[in-house]
Amino acid sequence: MISKARIKWIKSLEMRKYRLQYKAFVAEGPKLVGELLPYSAPLCLVATQDWLKRNGRQAESAGEVYEVSQEELERTSLLRTPQSVLAVMHIPERRLDLTALQGKLSIALDGVQDPGNLGTILRIADWFGIRHVICSEGTADVYNPKCVQSCMGALARVEVYYCPLPEVLREVRMPVFGTFLDGKDIYAEELPAEGIIVMGNEGNGISTEVARLVSRRLYVPNFPKGSLTTESLNVAVATGIVCAEFRRRQQS
Amino acid sequence: MISKARIKWIKSLEMRKYRLQYKAFVAEGPKLVGELLPYSAPLCLVATQDWLKRNGRQAESAGEVYEVSQEELERTSLLRTPQSVLAVMHIPERRLDLTALQGKLSIALDGVQDPGNLGTILRIADWFGIRHVICSEGTADVYNPKCVQSCMGALARVEVYYCPLPEVLREVRMPVFGTFLDGKDIYAEELPAEGIIVMGNEGNGISTEVARLVSRRLYVPNFPKGSLTTESLNVAVATGIVCAEFRRRQQS
Repeated sequence: MISKARIKWIKSLEMRKYRLQYKAFVAEGPKLVGELLPYSAPLCLVATQDWLKRNGRQAESAGEVYEVSQEELERTSLLRTPQSVLAVMHIPERRLDLTALQGKLSIALDGVQDPGNLGTILRIADWFGIRHVICSEGTADVYNPKCVQSCMGALARVEVYYCPLPEVLREVRMPVFGTFLDGKDIYAEELPAEGIIVMGNEGNGISTEVARLVSRRLYVPNFPKGSLTTESLNVAVATGIVCAEFRRRQQS
Repeated sequence: MISKARIKWIKSLEMRKYRLQYKAFVAEGPKLVGELLPYSAPLCLVATQDWLKRNGRQAESAGEVYEVSQEELERTSLLRTPQSVLAVMHIPERRLDLTALQGKLSIALDGVQDPGNLGTILRIADWFGIRHVICSEGTADVYNPKCVQSCMGALARVEVYYCPLPEVLREVRMPVFGTFLDGKDIYAEELPAEGIIVMGNEGNGISTEVARLVSRRLYVPNFPKGSLTTESLNVAVATGIVCAEFRRRQQS
């Protein structure tokens, strides 16, 4: 049984304004919730009897637990097809410490708008062992339900920061990479183990201000090189190809 | 001015059943329509006076042209925010000729469900000069409006076929590649210029039947290799990384 007030609070977290106010976000489904719980204790867990029976130990860390009927879960969920469990998680307050980036590869996002792309990029960061993702203030909110659901467990392992991106890039003392149509063939360039890979907005690419701070302009060649094809790759796909190439160099 | 019957016909193309019946699909927006028109003549063009003024010559090839008000365009469009032009295009009838795949790299999709992923994969194929994309019958419909809009001009340059995938893979006489968690490190394998790259469903990967027909099992290593990360990359991202690596070998 869950109160109307509790449902209203959870539903409000669909909006950024309330996520900021309550410092909380919603994660749904047994797979995602199961991946997040080992990393942090939920403020609130709303689950069917069936889920609770099978995951009793995991539920113990929760601030509040509500055993609900399928019908109540449907009224609480932000998804069209809710699946057995919903967790309200705390949004960690993070301050970017530039020294933590030293010796490492990081990703910076300059106005990535689509929450699905942002979630996919977080999974890429996680896959390639990239711990820090620095987002411009115009980038989508990682705690948007659509992004949370597409991030999966990456949300627990990758640290996401929202900062004025040009300030950060001016202060870091390491190579800043970006992809441009007139950049240099990534396969012919030296790619170090330390640096920041900047990826831009879906329609407009990297903004002029940030582009000025990119010290190494790269390009993923199309095939045959220079032929007439699609103008650009999807931003998440480009991020994947660039990160894979950086890591290939490090492993080889 | 456009008739109610015409609007109804266009609206019906949102559904696969009617796209199959009328052998037609809808493409919207000046950018996408502008990319498609040089490749084939639209059955019908619905545009604002403004668009027609600037693109009169392109409109000449259309079977029917309707100059409409913004309000009429809104009533006709399948999008939430229609943009100055909408084209009804003919769906080409294609029969896969296996000899056309010889000496080339092709992509096969085994149950890719999300139209956005399918569109993104078509852009990847286009970028990397892959002409043929062979879809299992369970793969999303490339003429779904969401897919069309995310394909952009790739839809005109890449040929998409729907076939019983196992039959095709049994008949082709070339290597069939697929990515699996227990596959071999793609960076340590020889990658030829001829072959078919199979990508699987978002949740379940490559089906058992198709997996049996994969002759070369590959794996995109995570970093550090073998560490605990996200279980898998998004299917479009994985397609991008695999295709980039095949083409890198060919260029180098």
